[in-house]
Amino acid sequence: MRKEIERLVELDREVKLLAHMGAVLGWDQETYMPPMAIGERAEQIAYLEGLAHEKAVSPEIGSLLGALGSSAENPLGDPSLEPLERAYLRVLRRAYDRETKLPGELVTELARAASLGQAAWVEARAASDFARFRPSLERMVSLQRSKAACLGPGRKPYDVLLDLYEPGNDEASVGAVFSALRAELASLLDRIRGRPQVDDSVVKRPCPEGRQAAISEWLMGELAYDRGRGRLDTVAHPFTSTLGSDDVRITTRFLPEAFASGMFSTMHEAGHALYELGIAPGPGYSRTSLSEASSMAIHESQSRLWENLVGRSSAFWSSRYTRLAELAGPALEGVGLEAFLRAINKVEPSLIRVEADEVSYGLHVILRFELESALLSGSLQVAELPGAWNAKMRELLDLAPPDDARGCLQDVHWSAGLFGYFPSYALGNLYASQLWDAMLAELPGIEARIEGADTAELLAWLRSKVHASGAACLPGELVERATGSPLDPGHFTRYLRAKYAALYGL
Amino acid sequence: MRKEIERLVELDREVKLLAHMGAVLGWDQETYMPPMAIGERAEQIAYLEGLAHEKAVSPEIGSLLGALGSSAENPLGDPSLEPLERAYLRVLRRAYDRETKLPGELVTELARAASLGQAAWVEARAASDFARFRPSLERMVSLQRSKAACLGPGRKPYDVLLDLYEPGNDEASVGAVFSALRAELASLLDRIRGRPQVDDSVVKRPCPEGRQAAISEWLMGELAYDRGRGRLDTVAHPFTSTLGSDDVRITTRFLPEAFASGMFSTMHEAGHALYELGIAPGPGYSRTSLSEASSMAIHESQSRLWENLVGRSSAFWSSRYTRLAELAGPALEGVGLEAFLRAINKVEPSLIRVEADEVSYGLHVILRFELESALLSGSLQVAELPGAWNAKMRELLDLAPPDDARGCLQDVHWSAGLFGYFPSYALGNLYASQLWDAMLAELPGIEARIEGADTAELLAWLRSKVHASGAACLPGELVERATGSPLDPGHFTRYLRAKYAALYGL
Repeated sequence: MRKEIERLVELDREVKLLAHMGAVLGWDQETYMPPMAIGERAEQIAYLEGLAHEKAVSPEIGSLLGALGSSAENPLGDPSLEPLERAYLRVLRRAYDRETKLPGELVTELARAASLGQAAWVEARAASDFARFRPSLERMVSLQRSKAACLGPGRKPYDVLLDLYEPGNDEASVGAVFSALRAELASLLDRIRGRPQVDDSVVKRPCPEGRQAAISEWLMGELAYDRGRGRLDTVAHPFTSTLGSDDVRITTRFLPEAFASGMFSTMHEAGHALYELGIAPGPGYSRTSLSEASSMAIHESQSRLWENLVGRSSAFWSSRYTRLAELAGPALEGVGLEAFLRAINKVEPSLIRVEADEVSYGLHVILRFELESALLSGSLQVAELPGAWNAKMRELLDLAPPDDARGCLQDVHWSAGLFGYFPSYALGNLYASQLWDAMLAELPGIEARIEGADTAELLAWLRSKVHASGAACLPGELVERATGSPLDPGHFTRYLRAKYAALYGL
Repeated sequence: MRKEIERLVELDREVKLLAHMGAVLGWDQETYMPPMAIGERAEQIAYLEGLAHEKAVSPEIGSLLGALGSSAENPLGDPSLEPLERAYLRVLRRAYDRETKLPGELVTELARAASLGQAAWVEARAASDFARFRPSLERMVSLQRSKAACLGPGRKPYDVLLDLYEPGNDEASVGAVFSALRAELASLLDRIRGRPQVDDSVVKRPCPEGRQAAISEWLMGELAYDRGRGRLDTVAHPFTSTLGSDDVRITTRFLPEAFASGMFSTMHEAGHALYELGIAPGPGYSRTSLSEASSMAIHESQSRLWENLVGRSSAFWSSRYTRLAELAGPALEGVGLEAFLRAINKVEPSLIRVEADEVSYGLHVILRFELESALLSGSLQVAELPGAWNAKMRELLDLAPPDDARGCLQDVHWSAGLFGYFPSYALGNLYASQLWDAMLAELPGIEARIEGADTAELLAWLRSKVHASGAACLPGELVERATGSPLDPGHFTRYLRAKYAALYGL
C-alpha cells in the first residue's frame, strides 16, 4: 500500500470511528435510553456528526486524492495503482465531493428541517391531517433541490439524489426497470385476485413474547449470525446498526397476535447484519469507507434474500418446521407445514407498504418513486400530493386510502429528507432474485442442502460474491460480476410467477 | 453571568458532553456489547478521552480563569464575583491545573500501566499468585509518585492523590478520623463476638431472577428513583453511571442464592443516582463541572445512607416487609420481619471488603489506607505487601487470609491506579450518619413518616442540603453547612453502638 493511501486510510478511519460512536449513541437511543435523556442525546449525536463532517472535509484528503490522480472526472485515479487502491479512491472521492460541496449552512438547514419535519409528520400522521405536514414538506422539497444543485449542478435533481443511495443509477435506468416490473406485478396480482384466498389466521394466534424471543434466537443460529459480533434487541421499528467492525446489532419487535411478523423481521435484519459482518475488501481496509455496503439496494437484496427467498421457502421450513412448532407452542398447535407455508405467503394488496406481500410490495415502491420524482421536478406540487397518492393507489393496487394516515402520511422518509431512497427497496428484491438464480446455477443441489438444515454454503457464496468486496464494486458492477449480466427484473418476476402459480393454483 | 463565565461554561460543556458520550460507550461495554467488539470499543473510548483532554487544556480556559483573577493560590478569583461564580472558578481551576500539569507522555504511560495492570491483576488473582502482579504494581506505584510530583511538587505524594478524590483532605486529617474510628469499631466487634450469632440463612434461600428483578423495580419506586431519567440493568460488578444530565443509570446483580445482595446493591446504586439526579447548583450551570458531585465520599454517603440507614432499618421495613415477602415468594415464606431484620444486619468479620457488614467494613478500608500510604511514601515495598496485608488483617479483624486472592489481590483499585480512593468508602459512612442526625434534628417525626411509606421528605432534605449544590461546596464545607459541624465520626459510631446493642443484646 502506498504511503499516500496509508495516510488516507488513517484519516478515513477517524471518520468511521466517529460514525460508529454515533451509531452506539443512536442504537442506545432506540433501545434502552430513558425518555428524558433525549435532549442531551440529540446534542451528543449532533456533536459527533459535526466532528465527523469536519474530519471528512479535511483539505489533506483532497490533496492526497489529487496527488494520486483522483478527480471528479477520473475518480479511480492513477492507472498504475492496484485495482483495490483505485476502487478505494473512487469511494473516497465520492464521499469527499459530497461532503465538501454542501455549504455548512445548507447542512445545518437540512438537519433542522429533517428534525422539525419528522416532528410535524408524527403529529400530522396521528391526526391524519396532511395540512399540518404540508409546510414542512414544501420546505424540505425546496432544500432537496438546493442540495441536488450543489452536488450536481446542471443535472436533474432526482438523478443526483438517487445516486447518493444507488451509485451509477439514474431516474431513467430505474424507470425502465420499474416499468417492466409494474406490468408483471399488475398482471400477477390480477390473476391471484381471481383465485380463492388462502387462510393466514393460523399465524395470527396469540404467541407470548418469551416464545417469540426463543424463535428469533433459534433463527439467528440457523442463519449463522455470530452473536459474538452482534445481538438482538426489541424496538418499535426494527433496524440493523453497525456500531463497530465487530459489532453489528439487529432489532425486531414481538407483536402478541402476529408472531410471524417478528420472526421475519429478525430474518430480514439478520440478512442485513450478515452482509455488514461479511465485508472484507482486502488487508488494510478494515474500518474504512471501502468496508461499507455497495449500495442500499444491495443491502436490501441481502435482507430480502434471507427473509423471503430463504425464510418463506418450503426448502427452508421442510426440515425446520417441527422445531418452530415446538418453540411456538399453542400458537401453531395442529397447524401443518403446508398450511403454515400458505399463510406466510398470502398475497393481498393492502394500504400499507411495510405490511405488503412480496407481489404488491414493488407497486408501493413504484408509486413513491413516481411521486417523489414528480415533486422534485416540480411537475407535482406538495399541495397536490394526497390527491396524486390516492389516484395512484387506485391505479396500481385498486385501493382507496380512507385517510392520509393510511395514504401519503404513512412513511417517515420524506419528512427526514430521504428523497431517492425508496427505489432501493424494490431494486433489492430484483438483485436478490438475480443473485439467487446465479447461485442455483453455480451450486447444484444447494436447495437440498438448505432443506437438510445447512445454510453455510449459501452464506459462503454470498460472502464471496456479494459481501466481501464491500464498497469496492458499484451495485451495477457487483451484479454483473456475481451473475454475469446486468440487472434484469426477469429473475424476480419469474420467481414470483412460479411460486404463486403453485400457491394459488394459477 | 459575566461574559467570561459564559464562555467558560461553553468550553466546559463541550468537555462534559464528551465525558457523557464516553459514559454511554462504557455503560454499553459493561451491559450489552457483544464480546468481539471490545477491540474497537477501547479505541472509541480512548479517542473520546484524548479529545476531552485536548479540550480541557485549551489555553483559552487558562486565560479566562486568569482574567477573572483565579490562580492556584486564589482559585476563587475576583472577590467582586458572585459566590456561585467563585465556586465555579474554583472547580474549573482545580480541573485545569490537574489536566495541564500532567505531561502527555505520563498520561499515556498511566493509561497503559492501568490497562496492563488490570490484566495482570485478573490473572494473578485467578491464580492467587501475587508474584505475577508485583512488577505491574511496582511500576504503578512509581508512576503514581511521578503523577503526584507533577500535580503537587514538594507535597507528600499521598496528600496529592487523596485530594483528587476528597478535595480539602490530607493524610493527617483522614488519619486522625480513622484512628478514632478504628478504636470504636474494634471494641464494638469484640463485644459482638461475645454474643450468640444471628441466623442469616433466611435470606440465603433460592430466589429466581425474575422475582429479584421485581423486588428491585419495586424498591426503585420506593426510593423515588425517576425511571424517566434512569434505568436498571444487570452486570457482574454493579455501578452507577451518568450518561447525560437526565440520564443516570444504575446496575445490580441477581445472585440466585443471595437475593438480599442484589436488593441492597440496587438501593446502594439508586442512592448514587439520586445524588447525581438532584444536582442543580444554579441556573446556567447545568452540564458543567459545577453539576458534579462534591467528592467521592459525599457520593458514597448518599449510597450508604439509602442502603444502610434506610435500607437496613426497621423503620423502612415495618410497613414494607409484607410486600417484599410477596415479591420474594418461597424465599421468604414463613420468615417474620424480626428474623429478616436480624439476618440483613448480621455482623461477622470476613476476608472480603465488598461482603463486609457495617461494623467491620471500616476496618477493611483503614487497612488499605495505611498500606497504600506506606507504599507511596516508600516505607513499605511492594514485595512486602502480602505479608503486611496479612499482618494487618490479623491485627484489625483477627483473620488470616488463606491466600492472596482473598488477601491483597481482592480489589481492582491499585491495579487501575486508584491510589487515595479507598478512604472515600469509609468517610462516606461517617458523612451519612452525621447528615442523618442533622436531618432527624430538623425533621422531627421523620422516622414515622418513612415507616408510613413516605421517603419524599427525606429525599427533599437531601436534595436541598447535599445534592443541589453539586461541586460548589468542598466536602468539608458541605458537611459544615448541612450539619453545623465539621466531620465527626461520633455520629457513625453512636449509630452502630445503638443499633447493634439492640440487635445483639450488648
